[in-house]
Amino acid sequence: MKQLWLFNQINSDLQRVEKELTKFVETGYPILQDSAIHLLAAGGKRLRPAFTLLAGKFYGYPLEKLMPVAMALELIHMSSLVHDDVVDASMTRRGRATVKAKWGNIVSVETGDYLLAKSLMLISKIDNPEVSRILAEISVEMCQGEIQQIKCTFDVEQTLKQYYYRIKRKTALLISACCKLGALVSGAPKRQVWALGAYGHSLGMAFQIVDDVLDITAKPSEFGKPIGGDLRQGIMTLPMILALKSTPQSSELRELLEKKDKTDEEVWETIAMIKSSGAIDQSMQLVDIYIEKAKKHLQDLPKIPTRKALEELAEFIRTRKF
Amino acid sequence: MKQLWLFNQINSDLQRVEKELTKFVETGYPILQDSAIHLLAAGGKRLRPAFTLLAGKFYGYPLEKLMPVAMALELIHMSSLVHDDVVDASMTRRGRATVKAKWGNIVSVETGDYLLAKSLMLISKIDNPEVSRILAEISVEMCQGEIQQIKCTFDVEQTLKQYYYRIKRKTALLISACCKLGALVSGAPKRQVWALGAYGHSLGMAFQIVDDVLDITAKPSEFGKPIGGDLRQGIMTLPMILALKSTPQSSELRELLEKKDKTDEEVWETIAMIKSSGAIDQSMQLVDIYIEKAKKHLQDLPKIPTRKALEELAEFIRTRKF
Repeated sequence: MKQLWLFNQINSDLQRVEKELTKFVETGYPILQDSAIHLLAAGGKRLRPAFTLLAGKFYGYPLEKLMPVAMALELIHMSSLVHDDVVDASMTRRGRATVKAKWGNIVSVETGDYLLAKSLMLISKIDNPEVSRILAEISVEMCQGEIQQIKCTFDVEQTLKQYYYRIKRKTALLISACCKLGALVSGAPKRQVWALGAYGHSLGMAFQIVDDVLDITAKPSEFGKPIGGDLRQGIMTLPMILALKSTPQSSELRELLEKKDKTDEEVWETIAMIKSSGAIDQSMQLVDIYIEKAKKHLQDLPKIPTRKALEELAEFIRTRKF
Repeated sequence: MKQLWLFNQINSDLQRVEKELTKFVETGYPILQDSAIHLLAAGGKRLRPAFTLLAGKFYGYPLEKLMPVAMALELIHMSSLVHDDVVDASMTRRGRATVKAKWGNIVSVETGDYLLAKSLMLISKIDNPEVSRILAEISVEMCQGEIQQIKCTFDVEQTLKQYYYRIKRKTALLISACCKLGALVSGAPKRQVWALGAYGHSLGMAFQIVDDVLDITAKPSEFGKPIGGDLRQGIMTLPMILALKSTPQSSELRELLEKKDKTDEEVWETIAMIKSSGAIDQSMQLVDIYIEKAKKHLQDLPKIPTRKALEELAEFIRTRKF
């Protein structure tokens, strides 16, 4: 999504964020640097810096203030991705080379810590105490979301409430912060800071639900990672929770969802059951609700081309296949 | 060391730090809370909060300003311990099973992240941007120290320079920050902020060297953890580096130091070789140099009972057996 046309307004600045980030995480340590650079080079969607910059467009676009915020938010995101990848000891016993897994863990923990520490350096130089307060609160909540996810793996009793709790912390809060802080450091009026934050929140919720749907429905070649990952890791997502409620085969589905070490056939079987339960459509209906909420919040903002870009971004998130 | 007489001046406030910390890490998640509380209950020396408070004693002791700094620094320390445990594969700390041993890597990572995030909440509310700038820089350096340690495990070519680089980041910088920030938030003059920071730095270096010596020489019953841990994990410490230079059995020692998965007999053999090389005495001479440096920096400070307490603390660190 590096050249996503929706980001046309800010493409060269996004590239600058990328360049600055690469330079900023430079260290004398090949291991640390390689893993940090590896993450950056993986590209990802750079959504978070994009939201930060776009939010600033409404208020004079003070790029030198927006850059460190955009960079810090992407570093926080990268740090959380890396820590999420740390393999639990029990998973390494399932035939994965323990030395390799152990080395991966060590470098993952330290890389994540390093990226977070670098983000703190940027944040500590921002002349607005509100920024660090907001980010500190979000960091705590993100940890709580992650722990809840760990606690609830393979737990088929999981409720929708728990799911929303988790995806709010896993995804929505940070995207909300990107929009909010982009506006804040640009001197936006309070009400519009709030509106952009609320846009980002609803968009983040929609984004994660779509991600969870795609993990079940996507074509592997488009998705960029194997599908059924959540099923294999026991992460109970919206389509699964809804499918359990609506499928006629609920005890079979339950059994499959609870099963650790699913075979490929079992994964496909589970996917088929979820699809035939109508849960995918129901999930997408919830996405629609969040997208409409997001777009509604944009109505409070100045009517400039950036507002249209954010509306179209919301639409893109609804319809994306990757 | 909870009732260490050196902390008499501040004992009840140290207990308050402990109480506040326990309350502060409360969360709705038993796993997270249990692991965080588990760490707190392991007790430790509470050195870092003690340094912070003692530094403030010179300048009117504004306790409400010192408390959040003391708490934040202890949380940063705890966070690094938990993450180090993932990295070091250690199973006990201070005689109790580590978070990792009890709950696995993922929970260790998340507990560490959570404790750090909580510290950021405290730091973000401190009305002095210098505090977060200093802590952010230290966090980056601590990561770099940890990575260097990972990179240099079982590396017998390690130099003294590399060792000092590492212990500065692993221990001295944070202790220095405790002293410095305690003074800073209490409104100390710049020169004395510096002096206390320099005291803490030298003391931290001495503290770590003594720790490394004790890992070889301590009586297990006093130490709170099995001895020879560094030898087993391939962490090359000062006594080992010095022993390699001065022992007549350098190729045997080299071989033993490089050996992963040492037997108990091999650990004892290595310890015996290090002891007979004179490296322990040499290490303690370096400790003496750092302690004298530390005490010299105290000369710049107001001559009040706290100054005597800090001098005696320095002496205690020189002579401690645990």
